[in-house]
Amino acid sequence: MGEARAPHVVVVGGGFAGLAAARALDGSRAVVTLIDRRNHHVFQPLLYQVATAALSPADISAPIRAVLRKQDNCQVVMAEVLAVDLQAKQIHVDGGHISYDYLVLAAGATHSYFGHDAWTKIAPGLKSLEDATEMRRRILLAFESAEYEGSDAARRAALTFAVVGGGPTGVELAGAIMEIAGQTIPRDFKHIDTRTTRVILFEGADRLLPPFPPDLSERAKRDLESMGVEVRLNAQVTDITTEGLSIGDEFLPVRNIFWAAGVKASELGRSLGVPLDRAGRVIVGPDLSVPGRPEVFIAGDMAAAKSADTGAAVPGVAQGGLQMGAYAGRIIRAEIDSANGVAREPFIYRDKGTMAVIGKAKAVAQIGSWHFTGFFGWFLWGAVHILFLIGFRNRLQVIFSWFWTWLINARDARLITGAAKIRIEVPRTHHFADRAHRSNSEN
Amino acid sequence: MGEARAPHVVVVGGGFAGLAAARALDGSRAVVTLIDRRNHHVFQPLLYQVATAALSPADISAPIRAVLRKQDNCQVVMAEVLAVDLQAKQIHVDGGHISYDYLVLAAGATHSYFGHDAWTKIAPGLKSLEDATEMRRRILLAFESAEYEGSDAARRAALTFAVVGGGPTGVELAGAIMEIAGQTIPRDFKHIDTRTTRVILFEGADRLLPPFPPDLSERAKRDLESMGVEVRLNAQVTDITTEGLSIGDEFLPVRNIFWAAGVKASELGRSLGVPLDRAGRVIVGPDLSVPGRPEVFIAGDMAAAKSADTGAAVPGVAQGGLQMGAYAGRIIRAEIDSANGVAREPFIYRDKGTMAVIGKAKAVAQIGSWHFTGFFGWFLWGAVHILFLIGFRNRLQVIFSWFWTWLINARDARLITGAAKIRIEVPRTHHFADRAHRSNSEN
Repeated sequence: MGEARAPHVVVVGGGFAGLAAARALDGSRAVVTLIDRRNHHVFQPLLYQVATAALSPADISAPIRAVLRKQDNCQVVMAEVLAVDLQAKQIHVDGGHISYDYLVLAAGATHSYFGHDAWTKIAPGLKSLEDATEMRRRILLAFESAEYEGSDAARRAALTFAVVGGGPTGVELAGAIMEIAGQTIPRDFKHIDTRTTRVILFEGADRLLPPFPPDLSERAKRDLESMGVEVRLNAQVTDITTEGLSIGDEFLPVRNIFWAAGVKASELGRSLGVPLDRAGRVIVGPDLSVPGRPEVFIAGDMAAAKSADTGAAVPGVAQGGLQMGAYAGRIIRAEIDSANGVAREPFIYRDKGTMAVIGKAKAVAQIGSWHFTGFFGWFLWGAVHILFLIGFRNRLQVIFSWFWTWLINARDARLITGAAKIRIEVPRTHHFADRAHRSNSEN
Repeated sequence: MGEARAPHVVVVGGGFAGLAAARALDGSRAVVTLIDRRNHHVFQPLLYQVATAALSPADISAPIRAVLRKQDNCQVVMAEVLAVDLQAKQIHVDGGHISYDYLVLAAGATHSYFGHDAWTKIAPGLKSLEDATEMRRRILLAFESAEYEGSDAARRAALTFAVVGGGPTGVELAGAIMEIAGQTIPRDFKHIDTRTTRVILFEGADRLLPPFPPDLSERAKRDLESMGVEVRLNAQVTDITTEGLSIGDEFLPVRNIFWAAGVKASELGRSLGVPLDRAGRVIVGPDLSVPGRPEVFIAGDMAAAKSADTGAAVPGVAQGGLQMGAYAGRIIRAEIDSANGVAREPFIYRDKGTMAVIGKAKAVAQIGSWHFTGFFGWFLWGAVHILFLIGFRNRLQVIFSWFWTWLINARDARLITGAAKIRIEVPRTHHFADRAHRSNSEN
């Protein structure tokens, strides 16, 4: 057996699922190739904190090579996978193809605008570090441009933010934008009062955080409203333009719109030629394999999977990805090590809880039948996220940044990078000069 | 006098010079408007550490609004200044013009390719945070692509870095790239040995760091060479293409070229219609004002200024900008406060020393007649840079990151962001599978 060719396991995607799959094969006889088009793993649950200037991109990410450095049987390839050929057992990348004995597809998900492609540029979503710095740019530029708007109406529109989608990302974004406007920057601006900023959170269902228990949904809504966020439930966004957004017949002039509503699975699933669900996810068997292809597993946000015990769909959260990836890795490992093949136990999802942060000392968390809110929920949320963050230095950095934010409401990553053009209305500058003069002579 | 209109001082640029000018007017009768096209001040002396993945952009920058938050007589405008009309005492921005009573122009400098515009894209320079993340992207991508190059020649070219210009930035970049290749990442790559990376530093003069005393130039060269950097003196780069670079008749195949050679002053100087020097800097009088325009001061890298005591040119370093900006602010303040005008003492530059870091525990520093090298020079360099960094949190973050880098050679901001396409040569993947298999069966 020592002379047999080592089985080649290809893992596509360096997110939670892909990394878990690769790690489950550490020390096995397999040769593992992990492919990602990025060089870094991103800790997605904290992406909104980069978008809202509390953390830097490097704080929540780690080079995939560094994460897998000590795993001798694993190589990392930075490349984009273009298609999968199930028949030939090959994946296609720019430059050629790579053969596999086992394949774990974990290429994740992207935003879905439900067919409204024109909304993409107006209302960006939050999936990558680039998305996060773009969102940060827009949030900070909104205040900069409001400072010099000539008309009250334009100023109000510039100071109005709409977040579409009341899941965890939407709730966290809305809360964080309100904190920036209300606590972090008011003293930075001399002409506008950023505390007049409106943040409106739109959710199509009849409550926020639909996967949470109803009492936590209600608490999240109350907490957000106490911070000044307007929560609109049963609100289907029907149109988005550069001028604002429509809810049926109602039009709201809004300059800043962020998308936290729909996701769809990576396009890679389509190249398999197997049945997909409405969100483009691959409908997998109880062992997460593609029907008729026991050597191909789908894990993470690309998989439409059910937990074998309850029959419930596995949720698109970090825990889902981690558990699916580790499961696929373990199955492959068992089969490689066994000469006669093994029976595959079906995948069971262990719900370790769900949590969402709303603001300073405000969060909702559910762990089993326990519900946590307020300061304790918030503390728990922080502790769990720190624990799961990859890299000891990242953990220290994030703890430090959070402590700082907590202490003095600072958000020190307030960088507008990339092109930014602001047209300023000059009369306001003079108005300031007049005002400053008046206040000087009053002293 | 309380009824007189408060004089309006416009400061263009939020670098060292502009901030120093604005701060010198704190608490004065003046109304100050500071204009920058960015929302953030960048601590340029540490920019190369962002380019080499040791620090994050937010660590070395601060929102200008936050820096000047407590200065009640100062407003910050984020806009690009298009031109200055000396006659009308106005500056033009997108959207209109702003009148001034006093003007401090401190818009800094950009790269100069000495007329070779085609080199700009091939050999990027280092002046902004965007430049730094682009350079970081290129450095990290070089190793990624080398990992999958099919031919030895292409692999060698991908692992060869040229830095053009042996001033502080060039020396620091060359040393840091060598440290990445030799210490930070070797274990991350399974196919290439990044310790075979070549870094070549080209300087047109006959020694590195021309403004330093000759013994420190010599020491910097020795230190770099002991790290493996090849130093080429008297080397005039005559051509740069995507294939490599030429020194006269000699052509070197190099895939990664970085520019640290020439600077030229902001284009804004040209709009004044006054004499400029060869680098586009405004030739100012002993009081840093534009000849015939006592109300217009030029400070920082835009000024061709001389120190009144020695007649020597004020160097284009942070200290130069800080001192010129503060001087202009003080002169304006004195004139505003005095009913009868004041005599302007000429500007004198106090040389507080120069330093450049070469690598871990390696730096050269000159303070007065004292010369420091090695570990002590390095420690001094770190202490001085931490002291001058704006923001208490930034200081803590940078100390922490440096300690970490020093401790385990980590550079944790190894993010490739933005578009990145790598064409991989597939045979090497299989080669790895074979190699891994061999090593498995040998165990």
